[in-house]
Amino acid sequence: MQIKKVVSNLDPYVPGRSENEIVKKYNLKKEDIIKMGSNENPWGSSKKAIEEVKKNSETIFRYPESNLNELTEEIANYSNVKNEQVIIGGDGADEIIDVIGKTFIEKGDEFIVPLPTYTYYEFLFKPYGAIPVYAKWDLENNVLDVDSVLDAISEKTKMIFLCTPNNPSGTLISKEDITKIASSTDAIVVVDEAYFEYSEINNTDLIEEHSNIFIMRTMSKVLGLAGMRIGYGLSNTEIIEYMHRVKPVFSLTRLSYIAALNTLRDSEYIKESTKKGIESREYLYNELNKIKEFNVFPSKSNYILIGIKDIGLTAKEFTNLLLKKGLIIRDCTSFKGLDEYWIRISIGTLEEDKKCIKIIKEVLKESC
Amino acid sequence: MQIKKVVSNLDPYVPGRSENEIVKKYNLKKEDIIKMGSNENPWGSSKKAIEEVKKNSETIFRYPESNLNELTEEIANYSNVKNEQVIIGGDGADEIIDVIGKTFIEKGDEFIVPLPTYTYYEFLFKPYGAIPVYAKWDLENNVLDVDSVLDAISEKTKMIFLCTPNNPSGTLISKEDITKIASSTDAIVVVDEAYFEYSEINNTDLIEEHSNIFIMRTMSKVLGLAGMRIGYGLSNTEIIEYMHRVKPVFSLTRLSYIAALNTLRDSEYIKESTKKGIESREYLYNELNKIKEFNVFPSKSNYILIGIKDIGLTAKEFTNLLLKKGLIIRDCTSFKGLDEYWIRISIGTLEEDKKCIKIIKEVLKESC
Repeated sequence: MQIKKVVSNLDPYVPGRSENEIVKKYNLKKEDIIKMGSNENPWGSSKKAIEEVKKNSETIFRYPESNLNELTEEIANYSNVKNEQVIIGGDGADEIIDVIGKTFIEKGDEFIVPLPTYTYYEFLFKPYGAIPVYAKWDLENNVLDVDSVLDAISEKTKMIFLCTPNNPSGTLISKEDITKIASSTDAIVVVDEAYFEYSEINNTDLIEEHSNIFIMRTMSKVLGLAGMRIGYGLSNTEIIEYMHRVKPVFSLTRLSYIAALNTLRDSEYIKESTKKGIESREYLYNELNKIKEFNVFPSKSNYILIGIKDIGLTAKEFTNLLLKKGLIIRDCTSFKGLDEYWIRISIGTLEEDKKCIKIIKEVLKESC
Repeated sequence: MQIKKVVSNLDPYVPGRSENEIVKKYNLKKEDIIKMGSNENPWGSSKKAIEEVKKNSETIFRYPESNLNELTEEIANYSNVKNEQVIIGGDGADEIIDVIGKTFIEKGDEFIVPLPTYTYYEFLFKPYGAIPVYAKWDLENNVLDVDSVLDAISEKTKMIFLCTPNNPSGTLISKEDITKIASSTDAIVVVDEAYFEYSEINNTDLIEEHSNIFIMRTMSKVLGLAGMRIGYGLSNTEIIEYMHRVKPVFSLTRLSYIAALNTLRDSEYIKESTKKGIESREYLYNELNKIKEFNVFPSKSNYILIGIKDIGLTAKEFTNLLLKKGLIIRDCTSFKGLDEYWIRISIGTLEEDKKCIKIIKEVLKESC
């Protein structure tokens, strides 16, 4: 058996602990756990979507349809693009990243990622033999270091990932900066808009202006369907057509399709989720900002990045102490470009936000 | 924008017609359509699984857990292997094929497929730059032409696909033949057991004997979960560990996980589905065999291959005539290795089988 060199160089996979394991280990009650670690929509899914999922649950012995026309239309409509400019993924935006890699990446190609950013681009691209080239997110000023991206471009650059709002730093990349980067290269500029609804800004207008702009989105965040793994990509028809040649045909489950369709048709739900999300973020930001040991980053997304160097604990130690009290937030140590003193807190419901702040203050008092 | 040569050589994707489009085009009622084209379990999913899917439908705003321990255990138990010998895919067995390609295939590697067989291996492997080398299924005697496989092996062979029962021909590859092939190469021998329950034979014992045996399965067939896209692979721990390094972490939806777990725990359902499936197959075989223009192949699976050269219509023409009367069966023209005179009929409920036979006889009378 011959293993690919790029794969033998990858880290072995270590699965996360399941909720049941956490409950057991820390002697918690399941209903007492507060999940503010994964940037989900804490108010749950669209009730209309849930209703339709239930209604259709008896059809799951049939294959999904390969033809996703109705959903494609809803997404095109929601995104203000044409149907032929849409591709839908069955493993959230992650499948879209994988398919764009499978379509365009040859061994030895380079892709640029400004650190810190979403770590999964690298996970998905490395097995294709692609080489990551790191640019920089300027954490001091909390903006993309555009020059670091421009400097990283070489003849081998095939793709550039720009996450806006950026995960985990939370702020936007300006349209001017995206334009500047897209204009200076033939590489595909993947604009990851997973959280765009919370910023109320998007970049779909750039698709018409630049043939190398690819916008990527997910239904896992404000649209409340993380568990059903739906993502989509928007670009010019040529890129979309090529990607359809390699995209898995049945990867979207029947119930994911139903959930997606009925969520997009529930515009009241989307409006409310966005509004409440922004309110929760502002509340959390203000409250966290009162904690003087915290270096709290402003955010246009549904999470807040916090530097915790001044508390005298690492992020791992601190998040473990919070976990014992049932609060799950993100230890950012695994984000390249961040040291071991960063945490990320996702929005909760107002009630969860209050509990979160309370638990944080308790732990700071007890342990710092 | 540079496209990979292997992708530019692929056929553009043409989506199938949706059920709604068929209903509209042929002026049918949705409830009158008989689906015997996709090798599903016509009796539907486990009632216990459906119940649990409904109960959990309100949790779909949360990400799936990355840790699939409970399901891994159920699958290991069902398959009589160890937990560390299991990998689970979130797009049916198709994801397992893709991941094994991503883990092992380098550009220029060869993979062997005996034609006719499942066409999707090629669809998934070509984008990795792998080159298909065709061996032969001996349709005269309805057995694998083992020598054609052995002759096809070269230094570049990285993978050999053996589908047993073979889709679409329906019969088994003997354990002796699999052993012979596995012993004569270092390439990974992927034994596709998507339909093994209907044959009441499996090859998991070969995993211990050969380090290059990989067994692939799906929950889309007898287990009645085609719409939820669950597949799994079984092999030695080394191969499984490598594959976990590249496998997408969240590709199995929350509800797919619930459905899979509760189906495997419903052993009565599995037993009944298998029994009824075999009965339906035997009934269909006997009835179809009475039609003298049909060349009906015996089957150990949940579908039957039929040569229809003697009816004076192509498979495309014939299946279209059946479709007008609401019967969907598979036109096999797109299977490499078969000409335009083959159809494949999946098992239905006994009532559907009877309607199927009736419609076939009507069309033969009217048009042949």
